[in-house]
Amino acid sequence: MMHFTYVTLEHYQWRERITRVTALPSVSYSITVRLEVPAGGSTVSKLTTAVEQAGGLVTALDVTASGHERLRIDVTCAAADTEHAGRLVEAMRAVPGVEIGRVSDRTFLMHLGGKISMEAKHPIRNRDDLSMIYTPGVARVCLAIANNPDDARRLTIKRNSVAVVTDGSAVLGLGNIGPKAALPVMEGKAALFKRFAGIDAWPLCLDTQDPDEIVSIVKAIAPGFAGINLEDISAPRCFEIEARLREELDIPVFHDDQHGTAVVVLAALYNALRVVGKDISNVKVVLSGAGAAGTAILKLLLAAGVKDTCVADIDGVIHTERDGLSPELRWIAENTNAAKYSGNLKGAVAGADVFIGVSAPNILTGADIATMNDDAIVFALANPTPEVDPTEAGEHAAVVATGRSDYPNQINNVLVFPGVFRGLLDAQSSKVSVEMELAAAKALAGVVTDEELNATYIVPSVFHPEVHTMVAHAVRDAAGGKAPAAELFPDDAPAL
Amino acid sequence: MMHFTYVTLEHYQWRERITRVTALPSVSYSITVRLEVPAGGSTVSKLTTAVEQAGGLVTALDVTASGHERLRIDVTCAAADTEHAGRLVEAMRAVPGVEIGRVSDRTFLMHLGGKISMEAKHPIRNRDDLSMIYTPGVARVCLAIANNPDDARRLTIKRNSVAVVTDGSAVLGLGNIGPKAALPVMEGKAALFKRFAGIDAWPLCLDTQDPDEIVSIVKAIAPGFAGINLEDISAPRCFEIEARLREELDIPVFHDDQHGTAVVVLAALYNALRVVGKDISNVKVVLSGAGAAGTAILKLLLAAGVKDTCVADIDGVIHTERDGLSPELRWIAENTNAAKYSGNLKGAVAGADVFIGVSAPNILTGADIATMNDDAIVFALANPTPEVDPTEAGEHAAVVATGRSDYPNQINNVLVFPGVFRGLLDAQSSKVSVEMELAAAKALAGVVTDEELNATYIVPSVFHPEVHTMVAHAVRDAAGGKAPAAELFPDDAPAL
Repeated sequence: MMHFTYVTLEHYQWRERITRVTALPSVSYSITVRLEVPAGGSTVSKLTTAVEQAGGLVTALDVTASGHERLRIDVTCAAADTEHAGRLVEAMRAVPGVEIGRVSDRTFLMHLGGKISMEAKHPIRNRDDLSMIYTPGVARVCLAIANNPDDARRLTIKRNSVAVVTDGSAVLGLGNIGPKAALPVMEGKAALFKRFAGIDAWPLCLDTQDPDEIVSIVKAIAPGFAGINLEDISAPRCFEIEARLREELDIPVFHDDQHGTAVVVLAALYNALRVVGKDISNVKVVLSGAGAAGTAILKLLLAAGVKDTCVADIDGVIHTERDGLSPELRWIAENTNAAKYSGNLKGAVAGADVFIGVSAPNILTGADIATMNDDAIVFALANPTPEVDPTEAGEHAAVVATGRSDYPNQINNVLVFPGVFRGLLDAQSSKVSVEMELAAAKALAGVVTDEELNATYIVPSVFHPEVHTMVAHAVRDAAGGKAPAAELFPDDAPAL
Repeated sequence: MMHFTYVTLEHYQWRERITRVTALPSVSYSITVRLEVPAGGSTVSKLTTAVEQAGGLVTALDVTASGHERLRIDVTCAAADTEHAGRLVEAMRAVPGVEIGRVSDRTFLMHLGGKISMEAKHPIRNRDDLSMIYTPGVARVCLAIANNPDDARRLTIKRNSVAVVTDGSAVLGLGNIGPKAALPVMEGKAALFKRFAGIDAWPLCLDTQDPDEIVSIVKAIAPGFAGINLEDISAPRCFEIEARLREELDIPVFHDDQHGTAVVVLAALYNALRVVGKDISNVKVVLSGAGAAGTAILKLLLAAGVKDTCVADIDGVIHTERDGLSPELRWIAENTNAAKYSGNLKGAVAGADVFIGVSAPNILTGADIATMNDDAIVFALANPTPEVDPTEAGEHAAVVATGRSDYPNQINNVLVFPGVFRGLLDAQSSKVSVEMELAAAKALAGVVTDEELNATYIVPSVFHPEVHTMVAHAVRDAAGGKAPAAELFPDDAPAL
């Protein structure tokens, strides 16, 4: 999951409070309030008015019980955040005659008991079913795989299974909240894998943050999976963990925070460049952020043909003469910033064609964007507060994108990871390469037709019917895979 | 999965061949043969006759295409084993006018692509769904768990999830076939968990057989699960692995090959003793087998009040004076065989009330059983070939049970593990104790009423509607758990 400002819980809650003022009501903060009102009269319409005057949005109003004297009503309304939801309840309580009952939170209700389940594909109705699914019949299937381990892809869940692995060290923008608190994100990811790519993913939230242990655990659990999605593991440990696993495993390993982000950023950049009519090999790109996402974006941009780029972190622009460079930053210094610019981010963006931020909130202003080249492209992806206010940026840039769902051009990993894994699994690929990532970015960009393309539509919706299959086919082809047989049965039926 | 003779693949295949002569056709060796025959005439009835004369059983005959000249028919028939299935095909091929097409194997067909899947509980239809299941809504759920880790049982899949963990070192009777070949058994187990107890289990087949690594892996993956089912891990490593995990984890760890077997054996013994009217504290029990299952059975029998018992392994009866006892065998010697009997198994069973074998095929004869006490009880559980031929044993013993599904009284772990875990999960238990196992055995035995009880019905069917709930309630109560709320919503709804 792509979020770039790792802060403490307190900081997060505080930040939520200060951003609240401008936030719009959202269903992700939706509540359902059970209340009773007197029958007849205008109380119901007063309720709706009260919610709206308090800045909320009534999305449903269900009468769940009715009598001569009283009505019981479930009012569902969208709030801007938790505190705002509380104010909506108080506004309803203040309406004369209203008695507030239970208040429930739709998002929490959806999480009760978790969001995914394991299901059996075949019914087990009787002894015959049992003897095929389990013993004694299963023994022959085990023997077949023991004699030919490749048959595991044919005769088990392996071929369609992905492990979603995290250590809970960098979850959303919430930071190091640990494995249990990370589980709702990983379950959500698994649900998205199924929804958009038909993949069976299971979350593994690890109670260790030691890279050696994580590597040995993921290697050990690999036999039952056809791919590993690393998730929300903090930099720089994520680099080493991924590199070692890629070296040692015979299934693809994909750290979504790095590569999923990189692919969707490159796709968006391809289309933004189409909008402004510039060529990728001629633009100057300034990147803010040298963590997991920033590094992966940089590497993919270089592979895609970007020639003029520099990267800034909290200490300014990275260059070869800067003191105390870590091995990761040294690599960046040596592969970017040929001009050896040694100033700060604000200086670097002057004259640049493209700004990509995966760093921290409010580090640039509209005035900084105004110093960029004509037809500037700004991707301010820090969440929930972008590097520059997107409205201000839009006054000076030709194309603006964020990581938020309430602005146009949301740069969202969900556009990428389901299709990438679908393609890898269909190709039975043992690895994931830069070529496959480039192909995925091209395919994703290509979903937006010339007729559709404009400055507020550089990436398609995740619900676009073709996104995930286009990405999957591109990755599968780049991985050297063939289109799968239309049907499992009968072509794949084992001969006696 | 309970099987006790760990042999090589070659040995298994050889053994399968020699047991074939007496084996009956079974749906676990069912094949479907697509063939064409001339339209009209008696070819179809000749086909059925040919299969039956070759010892097979036609279970379905579907005409899948029909023309003036030819019919296409799918003939499904049960065979005794793979080789027999081949002979059935040849018998059909020999019928004049028959052209054999594709032959498929129903058990293999059921395994194509694996037997389980991951499903999302909620539809993801639009941005609103996405914003509650995933970002931004999910962040509030993560924060709630970060602030109160116990909420993971309320707001995630943890409370209903079990990891089925194996290293593939002792799979069925097939021995050390490795993690990939073990996967079909673990998938089957997961399917049974759902079918009989509504539990979401996911298989983890580990690519290591090092106890230290296995312990650290299982500890690391524990945050996302409410229980660990260890499976098909060979002795003596299984003892150490389980003991260390039980010590270090806050969720229950249950090695089914040990404890599931022990519980079902004790339940069957309770009922066999009801049949013959003997008391558990007065019977002499001889156990053959000192591996994972044998040791666990012994310990549970001692806890259940058995006073006179001895254990034999391949080197004869275990006693304190025997040379070269491992720590495990020394424990057995010191806690059994007060008479310090030092002979062999055949000598030990003379005069015994109960024989329980979890060891090797054909190590006793009917004549040996004849030397037992009156109203002898014989549980010959080696699979697929029992310690003594059950028909021969039945001539001298009052009650005979095996591990096979084609004799009465199948001692089958499926009777136990789903209910045990359901009870543990419902109680949110952090451990599994001997008291819970005793309660599970009593509950399982109690499913068979006095009216139903007889020498060929000492254990109920796994499809008996009450088995799993009775076991679950007994374990839950023994674990100090309360009956779960009838509904998740509304009582469990989070307050704002």
